[in-house]
Amino acid sequence: MATTPRVTVWNEFRHERTDEKIRSIYPEGMHAVIARALREAGMTVRTATLDEPEHGLTEQVLAETEVLTWWGHQAHREVEDRIVDRVQERVLDGMGLVVLHSGHFSKIFRRLMGTSCSLTWREIGEKERVWVVAPSHPVAAGLGEYFEIPHTEMYGEPFDVPAPDTLVFVNWYQGGEIFRGGCAYERGRGKIFYFSPGHETLPIYYQPEVQQVIVNAVRWASPLGWPAVPIPSPKIKGGNRRIPLEPVPSQ
Amino acid sequence: MATTPRVTVWNEFRHERTDEKIRSIYPEGMHAVIARALREAGMTVRTATLDEPEHGLTEQVLAETEVLTWWGHQAHREVEDRIVDRVQERVLDGMGLVVLHSGHFSKIFRRLMGTSCSLTWREIGEKERVWVVAPSHPVAAGLGEYFEIPHTEMYGEPFDVPAPDTLVFVNWYQGGEIFRGGCAYERGRGKIFYFSPGHETLPIYYQPEVQQVIVNAVRWASPLGWPAVPIPSPKIKGGNRRIPLEPVPSQ
Amino acid sequence: MATTPRVTVWNEFRHERTDEKIRSIYPEGMHAVIARALREAGMTVRTATLDEPEHGLTEQVLAETEVLTWWGHQAHREVEDRIVDRVQERVLDGMGLVVLHSGHFSKIFRRLMGTSCSLTWREIGEKERVWVVAPSHPVAAGLGEYFEIPHTEMYGEPFDVPAPDTLVFVNWYQGGEIFRGGCAYERGRGKIFYFSPGHETLPIYYQPEVQQVIVNAVRWASPLGWPAVPIPSPKIKGGNRRIPLEPVPSQ
Amino acid sequence: MATTPRVTVWNEFRHERTDEKIRSIYPEGMHAVIARALREAGMTVRTATLDEPEHGLTEQVLAETEVLTWWGHQAHREVEDRIVDRVQERVLDGMGLVVLHSGHFSKIFRRLMGTSCSLTWREIGEKERVWVVAPSHPVAAGLGEYFEIPHTEMYGEPFDVPAPDTLVFVNWYQGGEIFRGGCAYERGRGKIFYFSPGHETLPIYYQPEVQQVIVNAVRWASPLGWPAVPIPSPKIKGGNRRIPLEPVPSQ
Repeated sequence: MATTPRVTVWNEFRHERTDEKIRSIYPEGMHAVIARALREAGMTVRTATLDEPEHGLTEQVLAETEVLTWWGHQAHREVEDRIVDRVQERVLDGMGLVVLHSGHFSKIFRRLMGTSCSLTWREIGEKERVWVVAPSHPVAAGLGEYFEIPHTEMYGEPFDVPAPDTLVFVNWYQGGEIFRGGCAYERGRGKIFYFSPGHETLPIYYQPEVQQVIVNAVRWASPLGWPAVPIPSPKIKGGNRRIPLEPVPSQ
Repeated sequence: MATTPRVTVWNEFRHERTDEKIRSIYPEGMHAVIARALREAGMTVRTATLDEPEHGLTEQVLAETEVLTWWGHQAHREVEDRIVDRVQERVLDGMGLVVLHSGHFSKIFRRLMGTSCSLTWREIGEKERVWVVAPSHPVAAGLGEYFEIPHTEMYGEPFDVPAPDTLVFVNWYQGGEIFRGGCAYERGRGKIFYFSPGHETLPIYYQPEVQQVIVNAVRWASPLGWPAVPIPSPKIKGGNRRIPLEPVPSQ
Repeated sequence: MATTPRVTVWNEFRHERTDEKIRSIYPEGMHAVIARALREAGMTVRTATLDEPEHGLTEQVLAETEVLTWWGHQAHREVEDRIVDRVQERVLDGMGLVVLHSGHFSKIFRRLMGTSCSLTWREIGEKERVWVVAPSHPVAAGLGEYFEIPHTEMYGEPFDVPAPDTLVFVNWYQGGEIFRGGCAYERGRGKIFYFSPGHETLPIYYQPEVQQVIVNAVRWASPLGWPAVPIPSPKIKGGNRRIPLEPVPSQ
Repeated sequence: MATTPRVTVWNEFRHERTDEKIRSIYPEGMHAVIARALREAGMTVRTATLDEPEHGLTEQVLAETEVLTWWGHQAHREVEDRIVDRVQERVLDGMGLVVLHSGHFSKIFRRLMGTSCSLTWREIGEKERVWVVAPSHPVAAGLGEYFEIPHTEMYGEPFDVPAPDTLVFVNWYQGGEIFRGGCAYERGRGKIFYFSPGHETLPIYYQPEVQQVIVNAVRWASPLGWPAVPIPSPKIKGGNRRIPLEPVPSQ
């Protein structure tokens, strides 16, 4: 029973290579910062990016991944459908998925939600408070009643997602909006967590509370965690199964 | 504020034209029986089938439909993706959708759920009891604690769908299975109800309790019902919206 | 099938009789303003207050009530336990309950929730925005994406209630807090809605959007609404029932 | 961060001392069998019973308890209200609670649920199948799609509890009933699991799958588990808190 999930941190990794300001904040890419936080929590981490072959998400890589984190923004459409199919299958089979910030509009998140996943936004660097509304949820572990992000991009309602199985965080923004910024879902045998903070032009992924939430989310989403949830076989995705009658004996 | 939703009853309508036994049960198609029950409840009903142009689901038809019911089985793959896109958009904009029996594996239901929607099944004509587990839900109106279907096709767990926003019915089967056979979802501004009973070789759609559930589900799913929920504009599906800062005045 | 529920508007009715400022806002009591809004929506309304015999909630009154609304604040402890028992029984049997503002700390709401129902608060007349996060829910009918209350008492998280069956509203406050201010619950055969806006020293119950929400909530909570949900018999509260075996016939 | 929760196994412990047949099945009481299973899973376990002073649930014992399990049946009314108050406070503060079988009608469970918690029952030793409907939930860890109890007491719907935050198990019974037999709740900062199998006249608590579920439920409900959820201070139960305005600085 492994207690250290193997994590693959996926990043579009375009902004950081083309925009000088963004590079100055995340010189090795946002994935490097996220991966470091997960490694410091004792996890086994690799990274994968859009421009690698198969976007770095080969069958082999996914087979060795308990939890995948996802950050994308400007190139959602460039993610190949066959890779989206592959990730969706793995999630339904039990792999955890942690979707970050603008990943709300990724193909994989929209596919798993079934809705448009649209929202409203504003980028003026206003203040944000992330409030905990499910204090006993594992993703809120170690946090206080709320934490602040001093300068953020606003994400606002209406957020067109299914009502989460557990709503963990609600964000407050200085300009007048709220947002369901921490949403836990179960789909098939996999767990999915959407977490809204984090933006390419702001050093949000360096903030300790944000890293704590990502670590918590990966632990919660892991199928190998405490207690172990075995990845099932045969696969649930393969269609309906015909069940023969097992005669119920008389009493 | 209309109180009689306009309903479109969609049916694949293949079995009834090709199989003599099925034709003898539903000579005009299952959609004719379902449509009659809805008309008797005072609703305005039209029907649409797979082999009509655009499967009978033109932009015009959908614009005039408050609730769509869906029955399909052997030809799910023949439903064109652009029509599935169109129906999904309408549901997210507020149209109700009632998915019946083998419609669980339709493209539109799988699209809206984000999961495989697979299940187990057995066809021996065994007995089924549909138990009410949410007695205050509108779809359970007028029912007792349970009702029976004397001969049914078994649908069993694991049913790979998201946990419903409200679980209304759980089915018991003589052979040893249970099934979450009445599942209410909200997606975008639309309401979706999945109801498992109903099979092409059994006269289940003539049964009064089954018709009562379908009538209830259509009323509940209607955006024009009591009380009226207006269909919004602008459309939520069109992407994220940038929100300017409205200065918050000092106290 | 009645479509105009009979409503009893309950008010503690102490503040308005003892505080000159409050009397100037609600000269006949807050219940008079709420009752008027419900009557204008076509409902049959009576009122009841703490200092009447049996707090105005006799067996007879409750038997003739489809939905009860509740406002209390400084005298929660003066509500007799036997009346709380009576109201709880009726709710579990199907009567709707709409709990307003400081009613969150009433005996009946705490009884039905099972938690402390505590929250945080601040009274400086700051601005509030009530955001809709469940746009297809009947209680949100006719509202836009949000509405504003220009001067309010802040109610903040942590709000110690069970996660609502449907979260309909989340409030934003100028001072930095959010609050789950519109919470829908089903308990037994009854529906319960908690709505946070409304304060004795502010004219909030005169605001059209607030009245619209209360009207919507009463309609939604009514067991006689559309479609009719019959109040069951025998009573569910009377203890466990022994069920004889009904032999399942062979196929 | 302890990973082995301290568990207190509470049992009414009357049946086993007064009925020869029951004593022959559970000579040291059901609590002894449950406690042994938890110890074998590496937990620190003590037991407590009704006829001890303060029912064995002193302030000290509860302060040293991460998870309490509860079995009661014929003497629910003898549990003192002040002890029920004490347990409820601890649950809202973060202690886990696992309620077993006829404990559904205990004062503490009814208090925390807010409903009657009534159900239907039949005692003929029929067959039961416990179906997993939330395969990724920690309480289902290590189980297959279902497991069987060869001879059981039937517990049937309507089960008058709030819809669970997660429905984990649904039971099938040979005689025609279903039951939501595995229900997960979060209340305050505490987690609660209700698990229906287990009866004083049947050796159900010796069955490995039943023991596995109880072990899983205790782990899941533990506030000290993986990852650690700290027990908060100050206490949430102490009433509303007034929050001063923290001025929001301009951008």
